[in-house]
Amino acid sequence: MPVLIVGSIALDTVKTPVEEHADLLGGSASYSAVSASFFTDARLVGIVGDDFPSAHVDYFKSRRIDLAGLQQVAGSSFRWSGEYMTDMNTRETRSVALNVFEHFTPHLPESYRQTPYVLLANIAPSLQSHVLDQMARPRFIVADTMDLWITIAKADLLALLARVDLLILNDSEAKMLTDETNLIKAAAMIRGYGPAYVAIKKGEHGCLLFGDSTKDEFFSCPAFPLANLHDPTGAGDCFAGGLIGALARADEETVTFEALKKAVVSGSVVASYNVEAFSLERLRSLQPADIESRYAEFERISRF
Amino acid sequence: MPVLIVGSIALDTVKTPVEEHADLLGGSASYSAVSASFFTDARLVGIVGDDFPSAHVDYFKSRRIDLAGLQQVAGSSFRWSGEYMTDMNTRETRSVALNVFEHFTPHLPESYRQTPYVLLANIAPSLQSHVLDQMARPRFIVADTMDLWITIAKADLLALLARVDLLILNDSEAKMLTDETNLIKAAAMIRGYGPAYVAIKKGEHGCLLFGDSTKDEFFSCPAFPLANLHDPTGAGDCFAGGLIGALARADEETVTFEALKKAVVSGSVVASYNVEAFSLERLRSLQPADIESRYAEFERISRF
Repeated sequence: MPVLIVGSIALDTVKTPVEEHADLLGGSASYSAVSASFFTDARLVGIVGDDFPSAHVDYFKSRRIDLAGLQQVAGSSFRWSGEYMTDMNTRETRSVALNVFEHFTPHLPESYRQTPYVLLANIAPSLQSHVLDQMARPRFIVADTMDLWITIAKADLLALLARVDLLILNDSEAKMLTDETNLIKAAAMIRGYGPAYVAIKKGEHGCLLFGDSTKDEFFSCPAFPLANLHDPTGAGDCFAGGLIGALARADEETVTFEALKKAVVSGSVVASYNVEAFSLERLRSLQPADIESRYAEFERISRF
Repeated sequence: MPVLIVGSIALDTVKTPVEEHADLLGGSASYSAVSASFFTDARLVGIVGDDFPSAHVDYFKSRRIDLAGLQQVAGSSFRWSGEYMTDMNTRETRSVALNVFEHFTPHLPESYRQTPYVLLANIAPSLQSHVLDQMARPRFIVADTMDLWITIAKADLLALLARVDLLILNDSEAKMLTDETNLIKAAAMIRGYGPAYVAIKKGEHGCLLFGDSTKDEFFSCPAFPLANLHDPTGAGDCFAGGLIGALARADEETVTFEALKKAVVSGSVVASYNVEAFSLERLRSLQPADIESRYAEFERISRF
């Protein structure tokens, strides 16, 4: 079944302790949609300016991503620039230019409105809600978010959470959202805000998936051991895209915790590949067999 | 098969954000030996003063721990006092009084010298080496350490590492020892110092076990999800004790990576129980069936 993905589409400048690259394809929707496209058909909703390289559009097309929901308007594309510190775990945003993104209102083509699986990738929660307003009740809705929205748009975020099935966020964001330092308690609180499921990403420490604790719905997903991280940008977006893609491919009548666990691993697999090179470069050569073999590696490193 | 455990035996004063308790049974050897005793017979090597409560000695005896290597001498027992901050992940040592521990030289009774499994729990690396000097070549030697020894006795520690099979340390210590921020690279460097295996503890993020990478020997052990931590003191010691105890119980001719993975889980199980109450209180009521059921939980939360 297809997935609808809304989020940002950006031109990124990324600096790490060893390299710097400019005008890279970036943005939460770009990473998520390409990641999801390894599992199922993706429908993209986003906006770019008239400076957006046609090569990037062609890449989306080569991944069979539906671009009916991609708006291209006069002006400059959204630009983001960030720098990673020595340990690659700390990131500083150097500049953000919203440009055409500043007045973005996601508008869903008629052909998108019945999409059963939805990923609201990281953008303002009011825009995420606006997408849901235009849809028939999807089978499963995943939302990603970030610290910025918890700080400046918490009410919007809480309003959104009442409508989603799974919230993805990282450990520091979970603590920030709940004012709770224990992640087990934080996840229980977030489930109280609406989502039946919560995935807490912990970077190099993997990911925790929480469901109904009375049914023992808890899963600890390991991180793949990587000696060399080249660019962590988009890892979370690839995780979310792979997760929703794997769920859509499984396409259960009612999404089970078992399917969610497998989807979390699938998302982790794509994310682990993505950080091996800058921007989306690694995914350009990624093959389905690569995904299968690393999925098996995840099984091997966690089995005892 | 029996295990020999050498380390500190202390009277602890522990303060958490909600509680404070004084004169608790503590020390690396105490925690490790009690933990190991759930799996096999433990032989203790350590020193206490004449103020050491006989109730604590009786508790060791109730766990069938061999005390032939326990020296009781005139003077005060080793005392340690520490405080945990709000998130329970940060600890500050408030005071240390070495007392009788200052002039401790571990002396092994004849009956200990052929012990096949050895845990050199956290004490000065020169003392750990001194224990090995008195032994026939054991089948498997595990050493634990801490940041203090990396700072003040790195040469002694490196000399020890050439003689041990498995080094246990936490993530910050692994980075400190190797000047390397990536744990995969740090573990490979530590293996280069001698130990065939390295276990890197990551607190609430679980533990990584590294062996021969050309044989894909890597294991990511999850942490048990705990909403309430009452006292993290001794968690690492219980982990080490459970690990060596489980290895000794399995007693393979040559210790395999498969057995080490299971031993890491067994150690994690005991550690996860230990933090549920102050000092060794939770272990006093712990039953073998509890260990089995939580071991099964570790399987459940990591299976997909």
